[in-house]
Amino acid sequence: MDGIEARIRESFAKQTMMATFGAEVVSVAPGEVVLRAPIMDLAKQQMGFAHAALSFALGDTAAGYAALTTLPEGQEVVTAEIKINLLSPATGDWLVATGRVVKPGKRLAVVSAVVEAVTGDSRKDVALLQGSMMPI
Amino acid sequence: MDGIEARIRESFAKQTMMATFGAEVVSVAPGEVVLRAPIMDLAKQQMGFAHAALSFALGDTAAGYAALTTLPEGQEVVTAEIKINLLSPATGDWLVATGRVVKPGKRLAVVSAVVEAVTGDSRKDVALLQGSMMPI
Amino acid sequence: MDGIEARIRESFAKQTMMATFGAEVVSVAPGEVVLRAPIMDLAKQQMGFAHAALSFALGDTAAGYAALTTLPEGQEVVTAEIKINLLSPATGDWLVATGRVVKPGKRLAVVSAVVEAVTGDSRKDVALLQGSMMPI
Amino acid sequence: MDGIEARIRESFAKQTMMATFGAEVVSVAPGEVVLRAPIMDLAKQQMGFAHAALSFALGDTAAGYAALTTLPEGQEVVTAEIKINLLSPATGDWLVATGRVVKPGKRLAVVSAVVEAVTGDSRKDVALLQGSMMPI
Repeated sequence: MDGIEARIRESFAKQTMMATFGAEVVSVAPGEVVLRAPIMDLAKQQMGFAHAALSFALGDTAAGYAALTTLPEGQEVVTAEIKINLLSPATGDWLVATGRVVKPGKRLAVVSAVVEAVTGDSRKDVALLQGSMMPI
Repeated sequence: MDGIEARIRESFAKQTMMATFGAEVVSVAPGEVVLRAPIMDLAKQQMGFAHAALSFALGDTAAGYAALTTLPEGQEVVTAEIKINLLSPATGDWLVATGRVVKPGKRLAVVSAVVEAVTGDSRKDVALLQGSMMPI
Repeated sequence: MDGIEARIRESFAKQTMMATFGAEVVSVAPGEVVLRAPIMDLAKQQMGFAHAALSFALGDTAAGYAALTTLPEGQEVVTAEIKINLLSPATGDWLVATGRVVKPGKRLAVVSAVVEAVTGDSRKDVALLQGSMMPI
Repeated sequence: MDGIEARIRESFAKQTMMATFGAEVVSVAPGEVVLRAPIMDLAKQQMGFAHAALSFALGDTAAGYAALTTLPEGQEVVTAEIKINLLSPATGDWLVATGRVVKPGKRLAVVSAVVEAVTGDSRKDVALLQGSMMPI
């Protein structure tokens, strides 16, 4: 596990929101971070689907850490803004979020994320995010 | 408590995500719904602020129910898309989200929400959301 | 005409896109700038309404100059990102865009804009924008 | 030229905004439409770059027609909402916008677009858009 992956796993471990959702880091590569979380009973909306905020939490966090892979050690990022389009009802066993850097930047990094719902061997896209992360 | 407020409180009670965050309905009026939640230890990001997903969850849900106040009984709404701009670190005792209908619609309702952090008597805006809710 | 209004009118005059659309500065106040343009035949979409890009151009530019009113002399702003929700078909004599600063900032200013279509004495909202301007 | 390409070229020809910008249809394929326009003197902002509204106009229109390729004959689409992140100053000879369908839909199609600036043989991304098109 290299330096950047260690930094991200350490930061991730401090995010109590991620623990609340049972989320874990799947992989870290330059410009791309994958997270996943089970769809648990505690994170649903009124019709029994995963709440949009769960897709948001995973997509936003994956995209933020993707931006962090492009920054020098000692920096953090915060979300400046991010937009989510919901594509299908979030049902299944897991949500998997893949965050990517579209354009790195010292003042602002543009990022995107795709969130998929996984049920056994089948996957479907449930959300697409596009946003800006601010290094601090 | 009139019909629409009862419908919203009933629907809200089914959202396990809202219970997870300790959220409650503050008020329901035509075109405007206010929610609040304490900033709890379980909903933080790596620097100890409330996670953007908490502001998102409250703002998105308040905006969705604001749209629902403009629709006939028996309808639900789902978020088609929503964007959040983060304005300040979300620190304090409570987050209060006020969702409003900008433009009602049978196919799509345009909505906005403001999320404020409250500490004792002081309030600050922490997030602004703008999105589209789809009646189903 | 004070300093900030003069700066904005001078900058506006350099925007050939604004001249192409026949746009003019209606008013400049701290944190709020109003622009307008006639709905001309050269700026339409396939159904004869004003193109979304005309509402975008006016809303984005009004919001950018609103941000500029909060910055020291000698600075410019560029749009980092902005989102537009279209509310009604843009038909009428004029479009009027009111840009406002939601949250000033040295690194990023959060802004919004409303675009209205005006026909004689009647007005209707046609677009709502929310975005981030970056001082440079 | 098959039916869908003919429909799109016919609709495009009615968009006076596209003629104002000297835009043309480069290619039409199922779920993907490419447009381009020269960066002309009439479409600039105050620093001499192409105005964000030019990138927006091309990206939004390309994305709208991409959505149209997935719909039955006789339908039109209008933009419900779209967000643009600006990636670099839009300088060069041409802007080329590639619109794609992310998720087709009868009520709402989710779309994206990339806008590139082309100077001789070199290309750079200048804008990324994500939005929703509404069939009517």
